[in-house]
Amino acid sequence: MQHFEHGGNLYAAARQTGANLSEYLDFSANINPLGIPTSVRQALAMSLDSIIHYPDTEAAMFKQAVSQHYRVPVETITAGNGAVELLYVLCHVIKPRRVLIPAPAFSEYERAARAARAEIEYFFLQSEAGFAVAIEEIISALPTVDMVFLGNPNNPTGVLVENRQIETLLAAAKECNVTVVVDESFLDFLPEDSMYTCRPLLRKYPNLFILHSLTKFYAMPGLRLGFALTNPDLTGLLHLGKDPWNVNCLAQIAGVTALNDSDYRQQSRRLLADEINLFYQGLADIPGLKVYPPTVNFILIDITGAGMMATNLRKAMMENKVLIRDCSNYPGLSPFFIRVAIKQPKQNRLLLKVLRQALTK
Amino acid sequence: MQHFEHGGNLYAAARQTGANLSEYLDFSANINPLGIPTSVRQALAMSLDSIIHYPDTEAAMFKQAVSQHYRVPVETITAGNGAVELLYVLCHVIKPRRVLIPAPAFSEYERAARAARAEIEYFFLQSEAGFAVAIEEIISALPTVDMVFLGNPNNPTGVLVENRQIETLLAAAKECNVTVVVDESFLDFLPEDSMYTCRPLLRKYPNLFILHSLTKFYAMPGLRLGFALTNPDLTGLLHLGKDPWNVNCLAQIAGVTALNDSDYRQQSRRLLADEINLFYQGLADIPGLKVYPPTVNFILIDITGAGMMATNLRKAMMENKVLIRDCSNYPGLSPFFIRVAIKQPKQNRLLLKVLRQALTK
Repeated sequence: MQHFEHGGNLYAAARQTGANLSEYLDFSANINPLGIPTSVRQALAMSLDSIIHYPDTEAAMFKQAVSQHYRVPVETITAGNGAVELLYVLCHVIKPRRVLIPAPAFSEYERAARAARAEIEYFFLQSEAGFAVAIEEIISALPTVDMVFLGNPNNPTGVLVENRQIETLLAAAKECNVTVVVDESFLDFLPEDSMYTCRPLLRKYPNLFILHSLTKFYAMPGLRLGFALTNPDLTGLLHLGKDPWNVNCLAQIAGVTALNDSDYRQQSRRLLADEINLFYQGLADIPGLKVYPPTVNFILIDITGAGMMATNLRKAMMENKVLIRDCSNYPGLSPFFIRVAIKQPKQNRLLLKVLRQALTK
Repeated sequence: MQHFEHGGNLYAAARQTGANLSEYLDFSANINPLGIPTSVRQALAMSLDSIIHYPDTEAAMFKQAVSQHYRVPVETITAGNGAVELLYVLCHVIKPRRVLIPAPAFSEYERAARAARAEIEYFFLQSEAGFAVAIEEIISALPTVDMVFLGNPNNPTGVLVENRQIETLLAAAKECNVTVVVDESFLDFLPEDSMYTCRPLLRKYPNLFILHSLTKFYAMPGLRLGFALTNPDLTGLLHLGKDPWNVNCLAQIAGVTALNDSDYRQQSRRLLADEINLFYQGLADIPGLKVYPPTVNFILIDITGAGMMATNLRKAMMENKVLIRDCSNYPGLSPFFIRVAIKQPKQNRLLLKVLRQALTK
């Protein structure tokens, strides 16, 4: 498994085995188990002919929807071909020399920084502390870097940090001219994010860059859609640093439709609220597993006690057409960590069954 | 009109006037008048549910189709979220200090180079010479730059250069360590491109970078799809410099389907063959217009003799819901140039009528 391999790579799995994509039950990608919102699917079906026109370079309707839904000024928004594209644009534009990454973390922080030839400094989060984000220690590491990445909640650990703690980091970082990238791509899964989101801090901290994906919560990663929020000057630079037509027409339409769909949001959060503890408990009951308490739609598991490496467990489960995320390639994790998404009740039960079987073989 | 404004910006037009997009007849964007291929539209309609999965990061099926159709090795191909994205990735990765742009040219060459903080050197093509591309003079300008851009055919002039001439440039550029970007995005409109395409030169010249859009010929600019061809080492760097999921699922499916649709290609070329001279002659018959002979699906027109500035003509025609490309913002062109796409016979007749009226007001 390569250093930057991701979850959700069904294509490689299907190429390896010759199987069809739809035969797999994919717990390796953290996608909303409700699937594409009906409203979005309908809007897309009705909008296919719109692709004969170039996308709106200003993504005006989409930005308006983001502005209203997340209560942020339009001049702070950059629309992205997925959130990850904007990490690359940011790094190419700012050209950080050295970045700080609390590890384990989403691997694209490192990959985007390296694309701009930055050096990487890891800050290793401690498994014994439940991978808690030690803000004071991160602050002490600021003087040698010019950018720091923070997933909130962090992927793959699920650890959430309150925004008042992040404000301490932002204030210290501002003094050292350090840009703080806060990735809020999973916050939509919370019933209420006011204790966590940094959006209210945008005006006060020009060194704050918030990343937000819309493809996980609205289950449309294949369409690509995300946005960044930062000060208007940097927003202007991001627009100059990227292809003007970066967000395709269908993604713009899907984004507007999704942000208007409050029913889907409610249903999604209700489903997760019903399953999160049940699935967690089901996993914790399996002998040999150390399960980290989830906050959103994925769960990190240490399988050391089961005496099987993650890469072997992944293979064993793939034979049963169930995909899990082997976390061996995360810097900061031993080869005994896996991550699973939280899906629909029946699917979660199936995973528990297949997992038990694979571990006892 | 801003320096980097483009044709096809229907959204701005609609926002200005409050009109609906579909009310406009758009001659400002160079899109195949046959519209989205039926095969592509069907494939998209059947594939909407695929967006629940991440796109294939390797774009394997799409690259295979490009490899077969254009007869190029897979390891030379980079798939792009539109061709233009790859210009930005190229410039961010190579970081040219100074680039040479024969002008007038597609404005994204300059914008992408500036995004990577390159200096721009224009080589002004001569209107009296029909904007012929003077290869020997471009060669003499090579020592001060590290990248040169060449549209073939050039947009907006329509001038084509034979590949044996470009080979002279490539050989000289290789000596000076200059990358030559040849944009072949309109070559698909030719019945036969073997005298023009640089694809057979890829193996011989590692400094050759070919750009190819699939959205103009297959009429799907809203979906974004293009590719680059270059030596395998630079191809590897491009892959590291870009977001791994840059090409959305639907675009990958559309690309494979489009490249398999030889009927659509035949029909498109037949339509263009029928209209190109007829439309050219119709425009040339209008008093005061100097019309540059087209080679593909767009025509450059000097309206100096009509005594009206391009910006005013554009406004006058917009009142009749016909959009043309005001070329005032192209460096290297006076404020008296417009560009029109070649569309279906009836549409072309309508343009001639509205244009005559607007000029005699």
